[in-house]
This record gives sequence, C-alpha cells and structure tokens, in this order.
Amino acid sequence: MTSSDTAAAGPHGNVHHRGGISRRGFLGVAGAGALAAGAGLGLSACASGSTPAAASAAAAEAFAFHGPNQAGITTPAQDRLHFAAFDLTTTSRAELVDLLKQWTAAAARMTAGDGAGEYGPVGGLYDAPPDDTGEALGLPPSGLTITFGFGPSLFGSASGTDRFGLAARRPARLVDLPHFPGDALEPARSNGDICVQACANDPQVAVHAVRNLARIAFGVATVRWSQLGFGRTSSTSTAQDTPRNLMGFKDGTANLKAEDTAAIDEHVWVAAGDDPAAEWMTGGSYLVARRINMHIETWDRSSLREQEAIIGRDKGEGAPLSGGTEFTELDLDAEGSRGPLIPVDAHVRLAHPSENGGAAMLRRGYNFADGSTDLGRLDAGLFFLAYVRDPRTQYVPLQNKLARDDALSEYLRHTGSAIFAVPPGVTDASGFVGETLFA
Amino acid sequence: MTSSDTAAAGPHGNVHHRGGISRRGFLGVAGAGALAAGAGLGLSACASGSTPAAASAAAAEAFAFHGPNQAGITTPAQDRLHFAAFDLTTTSRAELVDLLKQWTAAAARMTAGDGAGEYGPVGGLYDAPPDDTGEALGLPPSGLTITFGFGPSLFGSASGTDRFGLAARRPARLVDLPHFPGDALEPARSNGDICVQACANDPQVAVHAVRNLARIAFGVATVRWSQLGFGRTSSTSTAQDTPRNLMGFKDGTANLKAEDTAAIDEHVWVAAGDDPAAEWMTGGSYLVARRINMHIETWDRSSLREQEAIIGRDKGEGAPLSGGTEFTELDLDAEGSRGPLIPVDAHVRLAHPSENGGAAMLRRGYNFADGSTDLGRLDAGLFFLAYVRDPRTQYVPLQNKLARDDALSEYLRHTGSAIFAVPPGVTDASGFVGETLFA
Repeated sequence: MTSSDTAAAGPHGNVHHRGGISRRGFLGVAGAGALAAGAGLGLSACASGSTPAAASAAAAEAFAFHGPNQAGITTPAQDRLHFAAFDLTTTSRAELVDLLKQWTAAAARMTAGDGAGEYGPVGGLYDAPPDDTGEALGLPPSGLTITFGFGPSLFGSASGTDRFGLAARRPARLVDLPHFPGDALEPARSNGDICVQACANDPQVAVHAVRNLARIAFGVATVRWSQLGFGRTSSTSTAQDTPRNLMGFKDGTANLKAEDTAAIDEHVWVAAGDDPAAEWMTGGSYLVARRINMHIETWDRSSLREQEAIIGRDKGEGAPLSGGTEFTELDLDAEGSRGPLIPVDAHVRLAHPSENGGAAMLRRGYNFADGSTDLGRLDAGLFFLAYVRDPRTQYVPLQNKLARDDALSEYLRHTGSAIFAVPPGVTDASGFVGETLFA
Repeated sequence: MTSSDTAAAGPHGNVHHRGGISRRGFLGVAGAGALAAGAGLGLSACASGSTPAAASAAAAEAFAFHGPNQAGITTPAQDRLHFAAFDLTTTSRAELVDLLKQWTAAAARMTAGDGAGEYGPVGGLYDAPPDDTGEALGLPPSGLTITFGFGPSLFGSASGTDRFGLAARRPARLVDLPHFPGDALEPARSNGDICVQACANDPQVAVHAVRNLARIAFGVATVRWSQLGFGRTSSTSTAQDTPRNLMGFKDGTANLKAEDTAAIDEHVWVAAGDDPAAEWMTGGSYLVARRINMHIETWDRSSLREQEAIIGRDKGEGAPLSGGTEFTELDLDAEGSRGPLIPVDAHVRLAHPSENGGAAMLRRGYNFADGSTDLGRLDAGLFFLAYVRDPRTQYVPLQNKLARDDALSEYLRHTGSAIFAVPPGVTDASGFVGETLFA
C-alpha cells in the first residue's frame, strides 16, 4: 500500500485512524474497562486492568468542567500537579479573549478525557501540526481539573500600562503581596499574568494539559514559570486520608473540607456584594501560591522531640501534643510540667483559626522535589496553594505572623510567590473562562 | 497527662506509638486493606480503598529486594522514578563499605514497605533524630525497587587518585562514554561515584527512598545530582501496555521484555568469563543514563506527516509506516511511490537491532518535566536509562550513529550523561550491595 492508494487513507497507508482519534476512542484499544467515570466505577476497572493506570479507580475518575465555580478548588485533591504561570506577549484585548476561548474549549475536552483538539489527520491534514500532542492518547481522564486565574499584572503592568483596558476592574482583594520576613523570592518563580493549575491522578495527564495550553498560546502568551507537584499535602474532602508533607508530618488535618459547605461559602467563594468594583468575581476565589523550600537535611538531623515541638503534633499519628488522636481539637491551654503542651511557637498554634480571628483557608498544596542544588541538597519542599475569599484578611496577616514567630520558619525558605483572581466557573458550552471580566 | 507521667510514654503523652512504628504497622490505621502484597492482592484493596493510593493494585505491589540480580532492572517498569548520583566525600574504604551495608539494610526495609529504620522513639530516644523521615508512613510498598551502581570515578578519580584501592578491579566494559555529536552535557547533571535508581508507583515513596539514603550517607557521601521521572517510557514486560513519551509516540514497542529470558541473558546480564578482571560483575549489568531534553515547542509545530516520518511509526497506533499494527515487525525494505515507507533517516530504522549487528538494550527510561527554562520553554524530555551487558558494543556505536544520522536528533539535546557498573544482587540478609567488589 502506498500513500496514493485511497483518498481517505493517511500518507503512510494506515487507514485505521482516519477521521481523527480521541483519547476516548483509544480506550477501546489501550485501556479497556477504564473509562467508567466517577462514582459508578465499581470493580470492573480494578479487575480487568493490566497496568497500574488501568487498574486504578483514580485513573477513571472524571470531574465536570462546567459549573458555577471552577473545578480544582473544592474538588477532592488529586495526587499530582502541574502549575504554570503565563505572561501575555500580545497587547491585544481581542487576542486575549480569543486565547481564553480556545483554552476553555481545550480544557473542557481534556477534562473529559479527550485530546486538546481532534487528534490525527482531521480532514486529511497530515501536513498540519496535530491539534493534540499525543502523549495522553490512551490515558483515561485521571481526575483532571484545569483551573485558571488572573494575576495583578493582567490589570496593569508595573510600568503603569493598562494593556487590556482592565485596570478599573481589578479587585481590591487582588493585592500585591507584601514582602514577608525571610522571603527569598526568585522573580523567575513568581507572579504571572495568568495561571493554570492542572491537577490529575497521573502526572502525564497534568503535564499534557499544560503543554497543550502552552502550544495553543503560541504567539500570544508564554510560560513564565511552572511547577510540578506530587503527593497532595492537604485533604480537601472528609473522604480522604490526611497525607504527609516532606517534613514527614501529616498535613491538612484541620483544613477546610468541601463537605462543610457553610465554611466553604464563608471562607472560599466570593459572594455578590463583596467587592462592588469587581462583581465579575462573584463565584470565584483568590489563589495564593508560594514555593516553600524546606531545609530537608537540617530537619532530618533534628530530634524527634524538637520536630514534634515545632509542629505541635506528634509525628506518627498526627495527634495534637495536647493529647487525643489526629482529629482531636487542639487544647491550646493545656499545660504540662514544662509549660504549654503545645509550645507557644508551635506551627499548629500560630496557624490555628482561633489565634487568627477565625481566618481559615482552603489549602490545596503539593510536595515538590526538583532534583538537587549545587550543594548536593534536595531542592524540595511544599508548593503551597490556598484558596481564600479575601487574601487581605485570610492570608497576609497569618503569613506575617508565621514568618516572624513560627518555630518552623527556621527550616523554610519561600522562593516563589504569586497571587491570582480565580474567576467563577463556565456554566455552559457557550461561555469561556473569565467572560464576566470582559462583559 | 504530662511528659513525666510514665516512663514508657513519649514526652508529649502520646502513648500509642511507643516501641516504634513501621510503615506496615501504620497501615492498620491509615491504609487498611492495602498491604496484601504482590500477585495475591485480589480485589479487596480495590474495593475498600478510599484514596487513590489505597485503591490501586499498583500501590500494594511489592518486589523482593534479595536475589541473584538486583531488582529494578527486569522488574516490570514502575510508573515513577527518583534517580540520584552520589559523590563520596570520604576516602576511607571502610566507610564506603559501611555505607553500602547501611544502604543495603535500609533498601531491603523500604522495599518491603517499612521505614528506612524503625520509626519513632526507639528505646525512648526522643532526643535523637528519627531513623526514618516519616513522609512514607502509611504508604504501602508501591512497587518500590532500589538499584545501586558504581561509576567510573569510584575506581579512580580524574586526577589519578585511587581513593578506595579499586582501580585494578574496574571492568573494561565500564568505559568513559565518548563525546557524541551534538552532546551538550552539563557537569552538574553528569557522572557520579554511585547511583541509586528508585522506582515506585508512588513518587512520594521513590523520593522518600532517595532522601533517606542521602540522610544515612551524611558525612560520607552527598547527592551530586538527581532526577525525577514519570510515565515510564518503555514497557519491560509483555504484560504492560506500551506507554508514550513526550513526543506523543508510543515508546518501547520493540524493547527487550523480561519474559524473553534468553534475550535478557544475551543482552543484559554479565556472565561469568565476560571480563576476567571483573568477575565480581557476574550477574550484574551496565547502566547508561542520559538526560535528553526535547525541543517540545518546535516538535509541536511540526506536521503530523513530518513527525511520523521522523519516528518511522504512525502516531496513533504505533504501527510501523511499513504497515500493520503496533507489534508488526518493521519492513525496512518496503517501498512506496515516494521511496522507502520507513525513511532512511527514521528513528526506528536506525535504532533497529538488524541495523546494528543485533545489538539490543533493555530500556527503562522515564519522561521528565522540570518546569520551564528562562525562555519559557518546557524543560522536559526523556531520562533515558538502558541496561546492557557491554556498553562498548550495545550503546556507544548506536548512539554515535543516532546522534549523527537520526532525523530525530534535530529535536533532542543530551544535557546529562552517566554510566554505572550495576553489581549483582544481594542473595541474603547477610550480604550487602557490591560485596563481590570488595571481597
């Protein structure tokens, strides 16, 4: 067979994929049994899968892209992250809106387990670059969510240029984060016009999502920085076990949980009237991202007693040092023969809502390990992500206090920082991410 | 309760973990049902798990550490990698041997799903650093394998110093790799005295393993470089689907498979008599590691036709351009109206054993994505790992040819390189990794 045999065949004589191939279509070949999405999965995928990916319920999980809020916030935290901050290279508002529309369409497709576009020689166009890069072909949705946010620079550059005519619509809550004590921020790991948070249970699916959004943005926006993460460090659902961070402690025991909708409404979602100049943010949230390096080697050489005193919980079970088990409330007043059972500079004490005027955050961070530094130390730590309704009251005062007083700070170095206004969700297929901002 | 209440209680009054806590012990609390190891797992872990990790058969998988060959070579490739190269800071042969003994003990424990050492206040030693860092507490074995290898520098430094009295035992096959056309190697990503390849189905387990080995090595060896990887890019077993690399193509279709023991014996394991000066390597293998960056953005803008011509397979199915389906043998002689169906400079043609005097390798590489470069490009590609019986005939000539002639080379940049002699396995609990070298 040669390329001239039939008009419908591809140039290499492979007729089996004419008309394009979707990730879904591929599952019939490569991942049979793994697509039964969501709660109805049951045991069939477990029983029939021959690979780890196919065997796992987590692989078949799929979350809706459309809804009043963006997915990836109260969604039960997936295990892997690829986070990217983009800078726009265009100054055209029309091109920005067009990018957001293209990104919305691609994100909806990829979230459902399809490619960013039709894969393959659609219409016989073998001589065009593919509309999907291919590395997720055959992989199930894997719980992918894609969440978009807008940085302060989108609303006016540092030089005062309002590139997109958005300055008047900048939310008052989208503050420039202040310099916190001990900050060692690297500009190349900080800020950005637009962020994309891709979470999935398979890193290949998360990386595929960011890579295809970057491909679509060619000529309009470029990646400013990106960060991979693994081992979600907070549970965001009561159905999840509490995971451990790279200090070896359980993290997120006291985190806000999606099931507590009253608390989520109070602390996470922007409500109508919150900010009269930025009603477009109703149903959205604010995201604070901090790349926090840990001095792993120093930590590993400190005693168990010191580690537990610094955190304020026991390392094994995660119970407060005031007693009980993991989910026992802290007793900040409990005294032992040597003073407070939870030391005055313990992390859990200083971070507790009762010590911060009730301020709480929905944390959604990930561990990271980016190889080693020139000194042979692990370049690793916590990529902190937190969603709040108002960063001015829920993040800034707390971080000021922690950076100043928290015993843990000695072992941390904040190397990256960014803040984003995360707009509400896209309610149907005719909408696009951020459309309320441009309305 | 205060710290002085009972002698057996911890200083913080938490009595529930006295006597130390193992990862296994923890499973009763945090991962119930997930430890049934190996093939006998059945459905119970699937059915009972409330988290992705617990739900997955891949999580409960466990491989034996002891055996005639090291695990992690013909073991069905796990999904995640943390690879580290260490440099020794000691010049004491006794300290080197002691390190290998400590590493062996810790590796055997961690492979079985335990901590690197007993976790917790063993003997009440709250004032000592823990013998395990804790972040894998509660996590099942996750298919962890830990594989050790020795670099050329262990047998004598560049300055000619034979630090450990091993120069006479250096295998002839452990060559210094030559400079290949186009090499852009970074010293900080290349070479090393000893390598540790940790593979697992959970990155947190792989990172935990390397981190604890680095902790144990404190004062004797430091990490020179390390690399994380995901989405194994080669299947090493006929039971595995063929995964895709970041070019979007299936990779490893024609790889050696563990089930073909005759081919493995011929191409992977060092046999008695192979190298009279290095009989200690019998049952071992040689590992070539190459960090290969891909020009992702350029690739993504090339046409599907060009991509398929460069690889020599169709992108969707992975079938050779000479026709058939994924596992159809290449027909290198097939001609179409425009010349060979598999172009003369296609990757699959140039790399095929029939074009290389029968040379074959057991590839075991991983995709990597290390964020972005200063230019906003993905710092991503393939971390190539290949096990061979003799790098001089199985890797060096092939890479010389590919670097010179392969159409794919235009899209690749080799940024890291290393070679290691991987000694035979540890046959029982009294042995240690590399003991034949020191006998």
